Amino acid sequence: MNYDAHSIAMMEPRNRARFINSLSGFKSANLIGTRDSDGNENLAIVSSAFHLGATPPLMGLIIRPSSVERHTLENILATECYTINAVTHEFLAAAHQTSARYSKLESEFEKANLTPYYINDFNAPFVMESPLKLAMKLVDHQTLAVNGTEMVIGEIQDVLVSDNAVMPDGYVDIEALDLVTVSGLDSYHITQRIGRLSYAKPDQKLHPLTKEGDPSSWDAFGLSNFNQ
Amino acid sequence: MNYDAHSIAMMEPRNRARFINSLSGFKSANLIGTRDSDGNENLAIVSSAFHLGATPPLMGLIIRPSSVERHTLENILATECYTINAVTHEFLAAAHQTSARYSKLESEFEKANLTPYYINDFNAPFVMESPLKLAMKLVDHQTLAVNGTEMVIGEIQDVLVSDNAVMPDGYVDIEALDLVTVSGLDSYHITQRIGRLSYAKPDQKLHPLTKEGDPSSWDAFGLSNFNQ
Repeated sequence: MNYDAHSIAMMEPRNRARFINSLSGFKSANLIGTRDSDGNENLAIVSSAFHLGATPPLMGLIIRPSSVERHTLENILATECYTINAVTHEFLAAAHQTSARYSKLESEFEKANLTPYYINDFNAPFVMESPLKLAMKLVDHQTLAVNGTEMVIGEIQDVLVSDNAVMPDGYVDIEALDLVTVSGLDSYHITQRIGRLSYAKPDQKLHPLTKEGDPSSWDAFGLSNFNQ
Repeated sequence: MNYDAHSIAMMEPRNRARFINSLSGFKSANLIGTRDSDGNENLAIVSSAFHLGATPPLMGLIIRPSSVERHTLENILATECYTINAVTHEFLAAAHQTSARYSKLESEFEKANLTPYYINDFNAPFVMESPLKLAMKLVDHQTLAVNGTEMVIGEIQDVLVSDNAVMPDGYVDIEALDLVTVSGLDSYHITQRIGRLSYAKPDQKLHPLTKEGDPSSWDAFGLSNFNQ
């Protein structure tokens, strides 16, 4: 089926939102923790966090200023710091509930029964229940001319993670931490690893990085056929 | 374990790349199809596609100009169009192979044994093997001051997708299409749906959108406990 620009423009607006939000593929699920200048806590689930670079370690967020995430944006701009907390299967319903339109003085931590957690002098609350927590410092933000959404760019200051999830080569096994992934606006999924693939080079065969010598791992990628 | 800014800066550079790339959570896997002004085809796997808005339908891409994706960037800027093709388990190894550093005149379609596919007068190749293909028109691009990466913003012109994957409310069941998700630089995963959750409102209980009345679906979210 081909949906062209006209048929997309003619869709019922909520259906179009569900449709277009599905098209980029699987997304991350993260809770953004902030405080306003009076210390009132805020928590919002986002699926828009994205990797920007490793040196320096940067992540971006897209925030719609008219959405329930507007308090998050206001707080980030006011305090220049925030936390990013990965969402797991265990507290997924609580994380989803933070997307309800609470007033600015209501804390989503309290409403969703999640636990604020602080370190040192860092002025934004982490989510205690999350096994992967990032302390972020605002480094840039801009309103995107194309549609008025806000892009927030932050530098990673601290990473709080279970040590046994960090592999010797630096890779973090987020599947072992039970992180969920999102599709569209409201669908949540757990994952099952196919495997890790070797760095691709021209005229060189791919091989799985994990479980070397285990033929099932090669089969999972269909490598026996692909490498011929 | 706490990794602070100093310990991150001290990591061996490749380990840091694997570490930081893992922290945003699960990512999408897409192949970007382009041609240069002479018609030479190019194909590159990216995990950086992100949703920007539904009205108009916009998606962003982050491209590192020094990477193997530089041909993709050059072609997009030259022709102002490109395709985004979702990666499935079936042709995952081929998709990964496109990340090898081929010369500009070598076609990754040929090297990875994937099939270029064209519609109407659209000047960029789709990947025939992909069950979810987007025709994109460049609408904006900028070099991000924070680290020199390029952000490319495109408007969705056409969506080619199996009709039975589009739900009546607009949601596209990308899991049924066998799309994979990525973590870090090289780990691929299939997914298993927990379920879809209702739109969250203050003082209202969440319920699963799928399989209504099926108690196992409530259990998958732990809703019986959460809603109490």
